[in-house]
Amino acid sequence: MPTRVTPSRQAVRANRDGQILEASIRIFAEKGYAAASLQDVADAVGLLKGSLYHYISSKESLLYRIFQEAHEQAKVMMDAVDELNLSPEEHIREFLKRLALFYVVNRERASLYFSEWRNLTGEERNTVLRQQREFRSYIRQMLERAQDAGATRGSLDVKIATSFLLAALNGVPSLFRTDSPHEAEQLAGEIANLACAAVLNPALLSAQIRPM
Amino acid sequence: MPTRVTPSRQAVRANRDGQILEASIRIFAEKGYAAASLQDVADAVGLLKGSLYHYISSKESLLYRIFQEAHEQAKVMMDAVDELNLSPEEHIREFLKRLALFYVVNRERASLYFSEWRNLTGEERNTVLRQQREFRSYIRQMLERAQDAGATRGSLDVKIATSFLLAALNGVPSLFRTDSPHEAEQLAGEIANLACAAVLNPALLSAQIRPM
Repeated sequence: MPTRVTPSRQAVRANRDGQILEASIRIFAEKGYAAASLQDVADAVGLLKGSLYHYISSKESLLYRIFQEAHEQAKVMMDAVDELNLSPEEHIREFLKRLALFYVVNRERASLYFSEWRNLTGEERNTVLRQQREFRSYIRQMLERAQDAGATRGSLDVKIATSFLLAALNGVPSLFRTDSPHEAEQLAGEIANLACAAVLNPALLSAQIRPM
Repeated sequence: MPTRVTPSRQAVRANRDGQILEASIRIFAEKGYAAASLQDVADAVGLLKGSLYHYISSKESLLYRIFQEAHEQAKVMMDAVDELNLSPEEHIREFLKRLALFYVVNRERASLYFSEWRNLTGEERNTVLRQQREFRSYIRQMLERAQDAGATRGSLDVKIATSFLLAALNGVPSLFRTDSPHEAEQLAGEIANLACAAVLNPALLSAQIRPM
């Protein structure tokens, strides 16, 4: 039965929740999920391991929560791009730029996602697999709209191009590293340029590739 | 002191060595390196765990040997491309096509390399890190030669483009899957087209992108 808490207790709990998530991202990223323990997480946030179970039910549930938070953030980003009502090619460019920026800025949790999602089991694994399919489908539809509008390279195979873009972007958190927000923006813009050049009609690109 | 063995004993040993490597690639890829045990490997090749130590010294040494075999194969491939004396842009295309094909055909061991190299420690880890730097440097120099020859997109940042190509290619084993050699060739060709379009001068591409 849920206990009644005052708003300030809720705030304390939410804050502690956030600390636990941040600490586990750092620890899982450093040690690898398999080697990391809940004791490590408890130590990092100054809780007894027993008290940690007040916030989470298992190490796996913690990993899942990290992924769901990242998924929510990615969804907010996609919705924001959709609302801009851009042309198909500008939509691709804007989406890739924002996604690359998200990965560069959140490199630890994004790397974790790509390297550790296989550790999930049961319903939580199914949910992540479904979200991965939805994400792929979003990119594929984006490319199909561009192809219908004549904005892709003539010979483009959309299915292969979708996997190629996923591959290139999934690698961003492990291959690009910066602590400077300005440099992160520049990197993301250049990554988007490279990815756009891979898939878009060169005639459109020559007009669009400009110094950021 | 080395024991003297007859050729046929050497052959038996080499054969067993190969079986052990193949089995561990499969098991590490299935279970993840951290969760897999030498007992799993021993069971798979029909040896007692104690006898396995006749062939390998530890689970980590087995992982390292898998990586070194993959590294040797990649090196043979790079040397073969170098010996073709191609133009800078054709060199890039040929290298990317062969590398993509290698990753599609050897997807288990390549995925393993990208997801598990962090499990190495000490000198073996240093060796793999050095090989990764050499590999990056090979790609970077390939792009620099193309840039000097005016064969890259005008605004290309070679350092960022190197990481982008590494990201895209490192993702190949986990994102592309086929058991058909013919389809593997087609995939590799299309991946090379995408990667070339990302970095090469569009004027060169329009002449080169043809159905495979």
